[in-house]
Amino acid sequence: MGLFSPSKVAYAHCDLMCGVYDPAQAKIEAMSVLKACEKYAASDDETFRQRAVLIKEERAELVKHHLSVLWTDFFKPHHVEAFPELHDTFWKAIKAAGDAKKSMDVEVSKKLIAAIDDISGIFWKTEESKASGVYPQ
Amino acid sequence: MGLFSPSKVAYAHCDLMCGVYDPAQAKIEAMSVLKACEKYAASDDETFRQRAVLIKEERAELVKHHLSVLWTDFFKPHHVEAFPELHDTFWKAIKAAGDAKKSMDVEVSKKLIAAIDDISGIFWKTEESKASGVYPQ
Amino acid sequence: MGLFSPSKVAYAHCDLMCGVYDPAQAKIEAMSVLKACEKYAASDDETFRQRAVLIKEERAELVKHHLSVLWTDFFKPHHVEAFPELHDTFWKAIKAAGDAKKSMDVEVSKKLIAAIDDISGIFWKTEESKASGVYPQ
Amino acid sequence: MGLFSPSKVAYAHCDLMCGVYDPAQAKIEAMSVLKACEKYAASDDETFRQRAVLIKEERAELVKHHLSVLWTDFFKPHHVEAFPELHDTFWKAIKAAGDAKKSMDVEVSKKLIAAIDDISGIFWKTEESKASGVYPQ
Amino acid sequence: MGLFSPSKVAYAHCDLMCGVYDPAQAKIEAMSVLKACEKYAASDDETFRQRAVLIKEERAELVKHHLSVLWTDFFKPHHVEAFPELHDTFWKAIKAAGDAKKSMDVEVSKKLIAAIDDISGIFWKTEESKASGVYPQ
Amino acid sequence: MGLFSPSKVAYAHCDLMCGVYDPAQAKIEAMSVLKACEKYAASDDETFRQRAVLIKEERAELVKHHLSVLWTDFFKPHHVEAFPELHDTFWKAIKAAGDAKKSMDVEVSKKLIAAIDDISGIFWKTEESKASGVYPQ
Repeated sequence: MGLFSPSKVAYAHCDLMCGVYDPAQAKIEAMSVLKACEKYAASDDETFRQRAVLIKEERAELVKHHLSVLWTDFFKPHHVEAFPELHDTFWKAIKAAGDAKKSMDVEVSKKLIAAIDDISGIFWKTEESKASGVYPQ
Repeated sequence: MGLFSPSKVAYAHCDLMCGVYDPAQAKIEAMSVLKACEKYAASDDETFRQRAVLIKEERAELVKHHLSVLWTDFFKPHHVEAFPELHDTFWKAIKAAGDAKKSMDVEVSKKLIAAIDDISGIFWKTEESKASGVYPQ
Repeated sequence: MGLFSPSKVAYAHCDLMCGVYDPAQAKIEAMSVLKACEKYAASDDETFRQRAVLIKEERAELVKHHLSVLWTDFFKPHHVEAFPELHDTFWKAIKAAGDAKKSMDVEVSKKLIAAIDDISGIFWKTEESKASGVYPQ
Repeated sequence: MGLFSPSKVAYAHCDLMCGVYDPAQAKIEAMSVLKACEKYAASDDETFRQRAVLIKEERAELVKHHLSVLWTDFFKPHHVEAFPELHDTFWKAIKAAGDAKKSMDVEVSKKLIAAIDDISGIFWKTEESKASGVYPQ
Repeated sequence: MGLFSPSKVAYAHCDLMCGVYDPAQAKIEAMSVLKACEKYAASDDETFRQRAVLIKEERAELVKHHLSVLWTDFFKPHHVEAFPELHDTFWKAIKAAGDAKKSMDVEVSKKLIAAIDDISGIFWKTEESKASGVYPQ
Repeated sequence: MGLFSPSKVAYAHCDLMCGVYDPAQAKIEAMSVLKACEKYAASDDETFRQRAVLIKEERAELVKHHLSVLWTDFFKPHHVEAFPELHDTFWKAIKAAGDAKKSMDVEVSKKLIAAIDDISGIFWKTEESKASGVYPQ
């Protein structure tokens, strides 16, 4: 847990960090998207299925929001230099969240989760994640 | 990661579970509350301090929301039997989030985080957390 | 109307009261949940029925929110002593709002309304309700 | 309580009514606006006063929302004929909510409450309020 | 573009203007409502159609919000004198947005757009629009 | 107006387009951010200034949202090929919205508006903007 580990000392001296960031937020919502698809497929109750579509829409929107915040608030120019694929990775991950809105296919949700895991991999390679993140992989 | 571990099999047979739950969501927001207080204390810029109050308010509201969802959506009657202090623990934790709205005192935020950690402890003792949770302690 | 009655004098000297609370807010939304179910049952228009599911979901979510606020912001430890069933009553009422999300059955909505009426009964027995409440039963 | 009184029979035969409406929702939020102003005036704590401004802003926004819904969703052309001042009354009431956002003056909040009471007076004179309203004056 | 044109000088001396207003916001959302209806009609995919209903509901709600803000925040008493039909025009336009929620009929959406165009016509005839508006017709 | 021009024919045959997009939405909110800064600077009323900070925060958040939607929902891989700077332009524009949250400096708001104008320039160069956009530059 970065904030309570020795790395917190680094944070305490860091004027530029301005918040807590963790890909866990996007991941948890993406897990809900996946479960909504699984449950949709397993049910033949009309109201249940409608609610699954509705709830999945909200959860996928939250994924988009959390990823967008991470991309523009946590990552800094030196990260873009270190990870030249950063922008494209985020763009595709947010698009994957959009795809997950459009589809009830479990595979589409799994691609979204994989895309978030890729972002998580980059996030936890950064020095700043130690002070900002809460749930290391 | 509960969802991809063997415990997922249990989940697959569980008709009553209906979503992904994880105290991590409340914890991350509570960490933001704490940081907002720390930064408020360290700044003498009027606009910055106003924004810290404002952002802390939103984050603490999200803590309340995540805790309320956990309390009523995840926990079931047999959990209340197993953890008789469950209701009171949640009540005090959500009140602690309310206290954190009212105060810029770092200690108040830390009490909120401790309260969430207590809830997290209970959560991860439940059998159902293995299928519902994402970030085990 | 508590706020404009003599009890307001008490309020004026009470530093701890911090807002207006009234179970009426939860009740009105629960009434909308009930009507959405009644209208759903009476219609065979596909779009109308989808919208009923959607609107009911939002209204039931507002019920949950209003009840959660009441539970943690209005009620104080001495109320829990006076009404030992308080936590469980709220827990079940908020769960009833969750049940009302899942079902189009009018009876499920009526149970939610009955649960709110129980809470309303407790609320208006408190001394503090006279200064905080607006629509006495 | 309209919905459980004999007037509900009328409602049951009314295809056009589509929801629960009650000026109580706007009134309760306006009461919170008033209390926020009173507490602001009584406090000299900087953070408390900032939060009072913030919370009042949200509550007044909710007043605007509830009034707007009432105006366009509940009222029908025959009401405009019966109450020719209807549009202007709502316009001024919603403007009063805007004024209440801009000011910490208790008198401004009281004008807002009076404006809502006027609307409530009109609302409860309508035949339809018996089936739609929940908290008769 | 009013804000960068000579009319900005007038704005700079105008203490009463308090924001940027433009019917374009309502128009863009109404266009989305129309497209959602067109796409709904052209599709026979159940999930797609459910999402069209859902997205249209949100977009129409935003139309209502933008129109309500315009009506009560931008327009002043002297506008009501100059445009006596102002209140009724807004009332009917917001009702048209409500109708657009209830229907998947493309014609209903087109009526909403026409109603917004009428409001836009009034808006851009006002002197104040030059300083407040961004996208003149 | 793209939607009502001959280009609409192209749209009618385009299965992939799924909504109305227009940088005007981000621009209008960014204009509000600018005005909030101008008014803040011109006022010495404490409550007014607090509200300016608060309203600016909300408006800048809406700018971020609208830009994020534009980036991931409107733009497609062939646009990234045609405009290789696309990702970086959006990243910097959304960061500029974040900067505008942090500052009351009018110049910071103007940089945000300039960044949106750059995006608008790219948007209206795309073929797809003719069917999706509403307010051509």
